[in-house]
Amino acid sequence: MIPVVSFVGRHNSGKTTFLEKVIKGFKSRGYSVAVIKHHKNNFEIDTPGKDTWRIAQAGSDVVIISSPEKMAMIKKTKVELTLDQLKEIAREGVDIVISEGYKYDNKPKIEVFRSEVSDKILSDEKDLIALVTDRRFEIDVPQFSLEDADGIVEFIISNFLKKPEETEVTLTVNGNPIEMEPFIQDMFINAVSGLVAALHGTQNAKEIKITVRRP
Amino acid sequence: MIPVVSFVGRHNSGKTTFLEKVIKGFKSRGYSVAVIKHHKNNFEIDTPGKDTWRIAQAGSDVVIISSPEKMAMIKKTKVELTLDQLKEIAREGVDIVISEGYKYDNKPKIEVFRSEVSDKILSDEKDLIALVTDRRFEIDVPQFSLEDADGIVEFIISNFLKKPEETEVTLTVNGNPIEMEPFIQDMFINAVSGLVAALHGTQNAKEIKITVRRP
Repeated sequence: MIPVVSFVGRHNSGKTTFLEKVIKGFKSRGYSVAVIKHHKNNFEIDTPGKDTWRIAQAGSDVVIISSPEKMAMIKKTKVELTLDQLKEIAREGVDIVISEGYKYDNKPKIEVFRSEVSDKILSDEKDLIALVTDRRFEIDVPQFSLEDADGIVEFIISNFLKKPEETEVTLTVNGNPIEMEPFIQDMFINAVSGLVAALHGTQNAKEIKITVRRP
Repeated sequence: MIPVVSFVGRHNSGKTTFLEKVIKGFKSRGYSVAVIKHHKNNFEIDTPGKDTWRIAQAGSDVVIISSPEKMAMIKKTKVELTLDQLKEIAREGVDIVISEGYKYDNKPKIEVFRSEVSDKILSDEKDLIALVTDRRFEIDVPQFSLEDADGIVEFIISNFLKKPEETEVTLTVNGNPIEMEPFIQDMFINAVSGLVAALHGTQNAKEIKITVRRP
């Protein structure tokens, strides 16, 4: 399973600055990274007057712009997408997903703490896997300084990315991931492998995706 | 299958202005729309200095920002994504996909023509399903005026959206859609329906997605 690690912390704790260094650390080691950032309110990402902005203003539910180097999508949602749903959208081709600002999700959390901003950590100790801080706490999780982005990168790599790779299967129904016991997962992997084996264009299949849509 | 209709036309032909009206036409009739726009060069969509921009600058391959009302994703690509790949990303929950600027793709095309800009149409007549124009051409496709966005909306609805809905299946291998004969499609639909039938949380499944990833 592709790992998701959540960075949390109070406003002005320096999360984004620290995250920039963490991303650079992963990239310099050859890993591909996706970042999923939570925003409480409505955000603006496009520029008024641009074609994509005009298309969204006209009411388009999804706007995509694609060039040889990148693509961007802006999608309206009726209810906020969960971190698991966003992970499924983000994960294609990346080694690790880092989320920022998802305080109430069940993913392993790293809190960024700065004394200037608060005197208490935000997270439950039991949810934390590490703390990035400018002072020491008497808690039982690894602690890193605010300058030690490389330490956190190595910590994440050795805890989440050094596992042997194996074939994995995910199932979503109406967009929601469904958990499966290992023997059910094997059944799905075998069934899907059998279904596609006889079709042209399926040799060297690293990723097989089957979608069934009912009216 | 979800329909894809391509709008093409020369620069300054008024494509985006016409498209705005077409989108409003679909929305006012209760349809959900995705627009996929092609950009030859690199585009900027985010604003320098914003957190999402900083995260992309730091090297993140995928940046997602999500709020209760919408989500946005910016994704670096090694090679340009095809219209079919973008359609798979865009299509969730929409009734129609409109592409703009994909001149060389094999989708049904509507050309927007304005005499001020050129005296010849851009497309091969055989690729065209309609022409939006300020002068009449001696060709055998329906022609609409530049003011008649509602006419085009009704034309698309009756040609592409009035078909009876049926269960459909798509298969992608390494991100590329694989075409399947109808009896193979039925085999996939039956196999997938059987696999998930016994699992909890799969009742009222409108969309079932199974992904197998091999190391």
